[in-house]
Amino acid sequence: MLTEEQQGIFRIIENGNIATAKGFKAGGLHCGIRKQKIDFGWFYSEVPANAAGVYTTNVFQAAPLKVTQESIGKENKLQAVVVNSGIANACTGKQGLEDAYDMRKLFAEAVGVEEHLAAVASTGLIGELLPMERIHKGISQINNTEHHGADKFETAILTTDTHEKGIAIELEIDGEKVVIGGAAKGSGMIHPNMATMLGFVTTDAAIEGSELSAALKSITNKSFNMITVDGDTSTNDMVLVLANGKAGNSTLSEKHKDWEKFYQGLKFVCEYLAKEIARDGEGASKLVEVCVEGSFSDESAAAIAKSIISSNLVKTAIHGADANWGRIITAIGYSGQSLDPDKVSIFLGDILVVENGVPHKFDEDEAKQYLLQDEVKITAKLGDGNGKATAWGCDLSYEYVRINASYRT
Amino acid sequence: MLTEEQQGIFRIIENGNIATAKGFKAGGLHCGIRKQKIDFGWFYSEVPANAAGVYTTNVFQAAPLKVTQESIGKENKLQAVVVNSGIANACTGKQGLEDAYDMRKLFAEAVGVEEHLAAVASTGLIGELLPMERIHKGISQINNTEHHGADKFETAILTTDTHEKGIAIELEIDGEKVVIGGAAKGSGMIHPNMATMLGFVTTDAAIEGSELSAALKSITNKSFNMITVDGDTSTNDMVLVLANGKAGNSTLSEKHKDWEKFYQGLKFVCEYLAKEIARDGEGASKLVEVCVEGSFSDESAAAIAKSIISSNLVKTAIHGADANWGRIITAIGYSGQSLDPDKVSIFLGDILVVENGVPHKFDEDEAKQYLLQDEVKITAKLGDGNGKATAWGCDLSYEYVRINASYRT
Repeated sequence: MLTEEQQGIFRIIENGNIATAKGFKAGGLHCGIRKQKIDFGWFYSEVPANAAGVYTTNVFQAAPLKVTQESIGKENKLQAVVVNSGIANACTGKQGLEDAYDMRKLFAEAVGVEEHLAAVASTGLIGELLPMERIHKGISQINNTEHHGADKFETAILTTDTHEKGIAIELEIDGEKVVIGGAAKGSGMIHPNMATMLGFVTTDAAIEGSELSAALKSITNKSFNMITVDGDTSTNDMVLVLANGKAGNSTLSEKHKDWEKFYQGLKFVCEYLAKEIARDGEGASKLVEVCVEGSFSDESAAAIAKSIISSNLVKTAIHGADANWGRIITAIGYSGQSLDPDKVSIFLGDILVVENGVPHKFDEDEAKQYLLQDEVKITAKLGDGNGKATAWGCDLSYEYVRINASYRT
Repeated sequence: MLTEEQQGIFRIIENGNIATAKGFKAGGLHCGIRKQKIDFGWFYSEVPANAAGVYTTNVFQAAPLKVTQESIGKENKLQAVVVNSGIANACTGKQGLEDAYDMRKLFAEAVGVEEHLAAVASTGLIGELLPMERIHKGISQINNTEHHGADKFETAILTTDTHEKGIAIELEIDGEKVVIGGAAKGSGMIHPNMATMLGFVTTDAAIEGSELSAALKSITNKSFNMITVDGDTSTNDMVLVLANGKAGNSTLSEKHKDWEKFYQGLKFVCEYLAKEIARDGEGASKLVEVCVEGSFSDESAAAIAKSIISSNLVKTAIHGADANWGRIITAIGYSGQSLDPDKVSIFLGDILVVENGVPHKFDEDEAKQYLLQDEVKITAKLGDGNGKATAWGCDLSYEYVRINASYRT
């Protein structure tokens, strides 16, 4: 799972999660927004943490995002985060905004942090008001130890996801052990900028707030913003990172000798969570990775990779394990990017299927066997320059249609 | 089917088609590219016709498009068009280009027109060479009367389409009867700019070549370029219009008193064919029309309409007859267009579901009954300006996945 370079920098902690870093706790419970599933989760740090966030670009930004941005905006710190699933509290007007403020206030009181150090997030159906009585009831039970545990948090934030998504890694900075952990949820309305999802990352590293924020933005563009499930960018996307400094390292900044190690570790955690979301896309049966190399710029490579991974025709072909490279080349061709069609080569795994813009003879059975695997990699080499990018997504299945033709009712 | 204004200008000819205009003939036959289905069609005019074309923006433009552009480029005239289905002759390199030239040459000889007055088009699988022997055999049978008839042409050009798409209308210009007819095919890889499709329009009107070309471009942007089935822009899209002047009207130009009548007639034919393609999109069970009004500009309205009609989540909701307007508002929100979220209202048919950015109470059963119909209209009123646009598409069904998970093999 780790490259050799990564193995030299960090290791994955078995059963690591969002509460593995020093001073973090998490929990979740059923408050009754959803019928059965745990639907209300939280995590917090013993002390205020430097914090950064990235948010959806959708103009219909949901109420909790506004409240969370206000919290972080005050002093770039957070100490606690509360999340509900089932209802997105989006397109809910004034009442929705009041509800989000109310949720923040009561939650902050319950965990004993200042109001502006609490963030709120919601995911689920758009256009419905939160059942505030149930939220209140949920908040009143936060300190009941039977609801504690990062596993419960991971479950509470899920919607149509089929499994929990959590990880933690450890690395050494200044000789001190530093942990970076995280949790996320998908799995519909997933598309770059921001991917439609919630992602939460915690670390006990000490790090400058401004540099934490810059690192999150840069890494998000290469991880969460490079996944797609269905091309729909949600109203509620948000990634938050909290760094509480409990590891005792000298404060990280770009000048710190171990900065690159921390950056690579944070990138790995974000990329891991992003890939897990893509793998668990609605109805997905496999993870698809698209690597584009040799384009005129990294930005151009990213646009081409996203064009391929977003194509319904590519996604259905992969679902059918059909080596229909014509659809891949078509998606490259309509990406709007400048390229020389006569230089394009395409690989399915290691199998060359197009060379310099024309078909390369390959073994159909071998390709079919490859495409039947759980993880499929498409590589496009353009031969135009040094730009490169990787995007992740999934196949498009009957199950996607079934889930989405009947999600709301 | 016609608005009152349209009824004042033209009427639909019963069983009208691409060969209804004076001096046009059409036919089709089975040459063996496909197993059973008629796969080879043509139409031509008794005399050279002023001609105009619009072509895919995909950088992997297929060989026949290059040859056709060369033909039209010579003197903006065409007299005959030949089309095969089954193989797209795209990404076929030098050999593919030679094959397209060869197909043009032999076809032109067979119908007795100059080579540069013949156009070629192909649709089907990408990356395979045309079976030229079969094409030759097909061409050798063109003058056999058993293969004549516009119905055969309409069938020959289809791929995964479920039905033929043809129409003709008549109108009066200078007191002369003028006919405009057309045929088209979809039904996958359909997305604006150009829509993935072939469209052919014939008219006996006399019209200036340059103004025919300008009218086609302007109308394509409001018809063929406003449909989507799956967001994939193909390598082979093309719309051609041929005007042979046989009606005997004084030559049309923008200064002609009846110019607007002709323009409206041509627009109707193109819009009709575009809607038929959307309605017959792969796996589609209904036609979806999206009207956006009140945006800052027509261009902005078009981008928002396309964003809604392209959303997999909107399309699956409509397939499930679920009035899930949250997905519509989300698609508006990520369209990248400037708008005031608090002024957006949304209608399903006549049913108001969102008013000024927040939910409007409506009867779920009534909405479900409406969405179960064969034609569904979504209207978004933005309240920001006077921009408006209409786009067409279809629902996303299990059948779409079935067709495309197994199309090639």
